Amino acid sequence: KINSDRLWDSLMEMAKIGPGVAGGNNRQTVTDEDGEGRALFQTWCEAVGCTMGLDTMGNMFAEYPGTDPDALPVYVGSHLDTQPTGGKYDGVLGVLGGLEILRTMKDLGIKTKHPIVVTNWTNEEGTRYAPAMLSSGVFAGIHTQDWAYDREDAEGMKFGDELKRIGWCGDEEVGARKMHAMFELHIEQGPILEAEGKDIGVVTHGQGLSWTQVTIEGKDSHTGSTPMPMRKNAGLGMARVLEAVDEIAWSHAPHAVGAAGHIDVYPNSRNVIPGKVVFTVDFRSPNLSVIEDMEARLRVEGQKVADDMGLSIAFEKVGGFDPVEFDEGCVTAVRNAAERLGYSHRDLISGAGHDACWINQVAPTAMVMCPCVDGLSHNEAEDISREWAAAGTDVLMHAVLETAEI
Amino acid sequence: KINSDRLWDSLMEMAKIGPGVAGGNNRQTVTDEDGEGRALFQTWCEAVGCTMGLDTMGNMFAEYPGTDPDALPVYVGSHLDTQPTGGKYDGVLGVLGGLEILRTMKDLGIKTKHPIVVTNWTNEEGTRYAPAMLSSGVFAGIHTQDWAYDREDAEGMKFGDELKRIGWCGDEEVGARKMHAMFELHIEQGPILEAEGKDIGVVTHGQGLSWTQVTIEGKDSHTGSTPMPMRKNAGLGMARVLEAVDEIAWSHAPHAVGAAGHIDVYPNSRNVIPGKVVFTVDFRSPNLSVIEDMEARLRVEGQKVADDMGLSIAFEKVGGFDPVEFDEGCVTAVRNAAERLGYSHRDLISGAGHDACWINQVAPTAMVMCPCVDGLSHNEAEDISREWAAAGTDVLMHAVLETAEI
Ligand SMILES: NC(=O)NCCC(=O)O
Ligand SMILES: NC(=O)NCCC(=O)O
Repeated sequence: KINSDRLWDSLMEMAKIGPGVAGGNNRQTVTDEDGEGRALFQTWCEAVGCTMGLDTMGNMFAEYPGTDPDALPVYVGSHLDTQPTGGKYDGVLGVLGGLEILRTMKDLGIKTKHPIVVTNWTNEEGTRYAPAMLSSGVFAGIHTQDWAYDREDAEGMKFGDELKRIGWCGDEEVGARKMHAMFELHIEQGPILEAEGKDIGVVTHGQGLSWTQVTIEGKDSHTGSTPMPMRKNAGLGMARVLEAVDEIAWSHAPHAVGAAGHIDVYPNSRNVIPGKVVFTVDFRSPNLSVIEDMEARLRVEGQKVADDMGLSIAFEKVGGFDPVEFDEGCVTAVRNAAERLGYSHRDLISGAGHDACWINQVAPTAMVMCPCVDGLSHNEAEDISREWAAAGTDVLMHAVLETAEI
Repeated sequence: KINSDRLWDSLMEMAKIGPGVAGGNNRQTVTDEDGEGRALFQTWCEAVGCTMGLDTMGNMFAEYPGTDPDALPVYVGSHLDTQPTGGKYDGVLGVLGGLEILRTMKDLGIKTKHPIVVTNWTNEEGTRYAPAMLSSGVFAGIHTQDWAYDREDAEGMKFGDELKRIGWCGDEEVGARKMHAMFELHIEQGPILEAEGKDIGVVTHGQGLSWTQVTIEGKDSHTGSTPMPMRKNAGLGMARVLEAVDEIAWSHAPHAVGAAGHIDVYPNSRNVIPGKVVFTVDFRSPNLSVIEDMEARLRVEGQKVADDMGLSIAFEKVGGFDPVEFDEGCVTAVRNAAERLGYSHRDLISGAGHDACWINQVAPTAMVMCPCVDGLSHNEAEDISREWAAAGTDVLMHAVLETAEI
């Protein structure tokens, strides 16, 4: 079993970097705080005897040697970046849980045939730079590196420039590594495990995601002196599309969700009818045809709203992935580990996207989940118990050790 | 008659300061660009022989002497600040039209009994600092100066600090001046004059305004892993309230208008259900009871939306004024001037708020309006013709000269 106090202390230590405003974290990708978090993680990895690899997307690979120099490594990891108002565990538990495995192995003198590599994937959250899981996506060949480097944040700063600026752009070619398998531990971010009193989620599938950026254009004009019939109110158009998004998602519930988290209004002045609104619709479902139906209906219903109101509307897909089915062997390793350790468990479909979803396209992959309080995540109040963290990391370790051939 | 080329050249010269991104202006109040615009105006006023007064709200008073040292001045003016994506004429025409009167008087050696004071009122637009017409409001005793100084912009910078920083906070006590009368020339910002082919609007009344800032709070949570029934989506709540605002305004049309120009979503991340939205509802009507009805219904219907969705909602009145009836004598002076000069004219109710609306509470006041293309304002594409500007300024001059006793 892992050392749950040491794991917890490391989680609390990392959470001091990029503190939020309400007890959580704001350690967004390729910021100075992200750089600080990386440096701390590197120090810890070196202390346990790892060598650190760094690729051209800033992905970090802390390698703990195996006994067979020819065996491909087993990867384990997640991400250290957070939402702007994020929690202390989302992603971080998966990285520091991986580190805790190595610390435990070192303590107990455990050796595996395959090396074990603990990974920190760059820009999982996708807030500062869409899409989410950007660098595991480049690693898996989904996006090109040039395209990724060109992504811009709200201030127009490019991802590639910021990665270099913080000093975490490595030389290693992204995606060159071959993997024996990859495991990711993550908090559930949903309510099911806690509600059912289960310790462990054995993640068999991941929901698919579609991000559509919608731009509605009307005409900026004076809120006081423009008669009602002459208005082209892009803000009101946005309101009607948001209502449609909600109806579309509910029409497929419980097998789909939908909302818009990002909304920018221009020129955003109290006495100017909005001439332009840009917002991103997030639709998800474990079923690809449901996602496709929701995307199509968004375009049809959005166009209808715009036509009725004399507005223009444009749709751009800015992120997404198909529903994922994880590797049967890896999933079985996770389920067996939970069983062997006597933790209660159930199979789960991940509601969120994860780096494991992309890596699953290039290597056998599975995920372990632990409960989180009220299913709350992407909120500074995100919380888990020390015991949940420990159980998840124990299961992760046993699945990894079995796969890495102890 | 005034010199229309000189007037136009000055308008174009001022428009070079704080250029916008699409041919208009971004010269927001108490920015460096505002300071530059003020300096240019002061240079022009001094060249015509004025002395410049500056009060503790940054209001500028360029005084052109009269023949009777005991006679109270006739004031004429408007504002030089613009919307973030504003036009070249909104406010500026009223200030530079006032200057053009003095230039014409100097050319022709015209003397009046009463001095004439051309005024630039600080922060008319109300975008950077709500409410609009802030400094004419302090002048008229509607707000205290301390309260005005404490207003904060979106970055948390205080109005008073910024006024001092740009170097345009004077020593003169705000509101100490007594006025014989005040006239303001402004573009209509609405479509009526152009549609009816009239040169001049004789403004008899102004619509009242109510700005209610609405804060809806739900719970930030993950867009993917939060089941639909567990969501507290403040963004969707905002959408429903915006729809209600539109319905409420239409229910009183054509005697009311309503919209929200300002909307901020938190944390504004694509994969976070909005936990908080702050937006400002702008309701207007020439009829006070209609405004009161709309405000009350916003609160009732907004509360209903929030209750139905498990959200909290709060309402704060952040600006407003009652409908205005301008001074009969001043209005008659404007109408007579238009008549005498042979310009086509009609009586108008101003759809927008103006500094004249506040000054009307402390001095006899009236307004002159000229058409603008498509009724478009608060848009960089705002446009007027040279002839419209000249006609408006001619009428302004004749009304001012009559009142100042030529
Ligand atoms: N796990 C997680 O929150 N990932 C961010 C990508 C997503 O929105 O699902
Ligand atoms: N004239 C003008 O646009 N004033 C700004 C205040 C208002 O919103 O009416």
